[in-house]
Amino acid sequence: MGGDDAPASIVAGAQVAAEEFGVQILLVGDPEVMGDTGGIPVKPASEVVAMGAEPAASVRRLKDSSVVRAAEAVRDGEASAFLSAGNTGAAMAASLLRMGRIRGVARPAIAVPFPVLGSTPATLLDCGANADCKPEWLLQFAQLGAIYSRVRFGVVKPRVAVLTTGEEAGKGNQLVKDTCALLETADWVEACGAQYVGNIEGQDLMSGDADVIVSDGFTGNIVLKSLEGGVGLALAAIRDQLNPLAGANDTLAPLYAELDPEARGSAILLGCKQVAMISHGSSSIFAIANAIRTAAEMVEVGIVSHLRAMIEADARS
Amino acid sequence: MGGDDAPASIVAGAQVAAEEFGVQILLVGDPEVMGDTGGIPVKPASEVVAMGAEPAASVRRLKDSSVVRAAEAVRDGEASAFLSAGNTGAAMAASLLRMGRIRGVARPAIAVPFPVLGSTPATLLDCGANADCKPEWLLQFAQLGAIYSRVRFGVVKPRVAVLTTGEEAGKGNQLVKDTCALLETADWVEACGAQYVGNIEGQDLMSGDADVIVSDGFTGNIVLKSLEGGVGLALAAIRDQLNPLAGANDTLAPLYAELDPEARGSAILLGCKQVAMISHGSSSIFAIANAIRTAAEMVEVGIVSHLRAMIEADARS
Repeated sequence: MGGDDAPASIVAGAQVAAEEFGVQILLVGDPEVMGDTGGIPVKPASEVVAMGAEPAASVRRLKDSSVVRAAEAVRDGEASAFLSAGNTGAAMAASLLRMGRIRGVARPAIAVPFPVLGSTPATLLDCGANADCKPEWLLQFAQLGAIYSRVRFGVVKPRVAVLTTGEEAGKGNQLVKDTCALLETADWVEACGAQYVGNIEGQDLMSGDADVIVSDGFTGNIVLKSLEGGVGLALAAIRDQLNPLAGANDTLAPLYAELDPEARGSAILLGCKQVAMISHGSSSIFAIANAIRTAAEMVEVGIVSHLRAMIEADARS
Repeated sequence: MGGDDAPASIVAGAQVAAEEFGVQILLVGDPEVMGDTGGIPVKPASEVVAMGAEPAASVRRLKDSSVVRAAEAVRDGEASAFLSAGNTGAAMAASLLRMGRIRGVARPAIAVPFPVLGSTPATLLDCGANADCKPEWLLQFAQLGAIYSRVRFGVVKPRVAVLTTGEEAGKGNQLVKDTCALLETADWVEACGAQYVGNIEGQDLMSGDADVIVSDGFTGNIVLKSLEGGVGLALAAIRDQLNPLAGANDTLAPLYAELDPEARGSAILLGCKQVAMISHGSSSIFAIANAIRTAAEMVEVGIVSHLRAMIEADARS
């Protein structure tokens, strides 16, 4: 029920995912408002958390909201993964309160893959779950991100970097300095099979120099949205300019697709006890279908078991 | 002497600025290395602060470095504005230590104009002078930015926003929350003639929704570089794809120019007692010439007097 064009685009995206990718889907929300779902089963929920509502309070109060009922469906084994395009904070709160987090995870983080032209995507985390962070949390984000990079994209030994303001060691704010000190000395790489490659600057996010990029959730969120906005704006302006020119936009179609955030599916909340995914409120039918496919893949490859095994190995070391 | 292709590109850029824009220039550095400057006078300096060197220590130690001598030339009235494409931290340290800051300015901030397609650029500050900030500094950045937006771009009543992670009040990290509390209650707008428009998210930086966007220097620097990198990468890929297509890149030339950071000239260190400008190390001849032109314009419009008058008015209120 959450999202700018919900539930219509969600229901349509679910139908595409069911037909094209063969994913089994459970829609959660008001059956009357949803209308014909093309045979996809619906778990009823009478309430909706509004897009601008205060997340934690809403999740506590609106016990029959679609976001809460969806998280409960996963908790109770009715479904294997959770996906919401609604209020991001509420989706996060519902996931954490109903599904819980993996024991040993200090703070779950939102991980988002970035396109790297002609190569494997890079994963930026945290993209917004934790505005104010501690160095130890960022250390664990590095581990969670490394496992995700290997399991999702097949990167054998993910290169982990810290997002900051200069290449040289010691550049950045106090949080980054303290985090780098931890990353340089701790034997955190053993549990997750990563390698630490030091600092990365904003202009190199999409360069392919790192597979996992660690950031506090405030900076990560702003960078993610800035890039989506800036690149999106440039591409839209170019499309408009080229429209009168025969074939130009066709020539660019593969590139547009590679740069398009919608093709990458949605963000994942790493550290949750089950698969929890979060999509943009403005997601198109295509984006929702892709997100559902990614959610199903994350269940199939057992991302949560991999994360749990890593956290346990790290606790033993 | 600082910059990736220095001093060649700096000397060539200075020549372009002298010829095309009629700016009087004083080059500072090693005359032997510079070679023929086409008649532009040279103030000798025997040392160079390397790009990766520790800024403050280098400025203290290398008293005959080009960056220090250039700042002294402005302090001593030999020149009206300072410009460096070298080590950013050293350029900042030299400006602050030699030229000083305006009385009443807590921390100078790096201000960078962002393109807004079809409209006046928006100014983001701080883009890297202060990695860890206090709310009161951000409040003053709002004032400095408002004056700059009016004096440089003619915006009568600049709309000031805070860069954060959501539209709703209260979204963001602790620094943003504390800053917004100040911006909402203080009568800071009176001294600078601004209007406070609340939060802005990353995707709206280039939307034209605000004329001045306030941020801590860590986040601002990363966002600036991310956007330059991401948009630059997308444009380069598009140029390559379109090369075989007759006329396509010509059609896009005006758009490329509007999105090109090089055309905007360089960043300005707002709060300095004199005009201090900082260019990318990778600046082309064209970018250096533009930066010199902007520096001259900032002197002509008396940006420093405007800032000083605002700070004094604010102190009285």
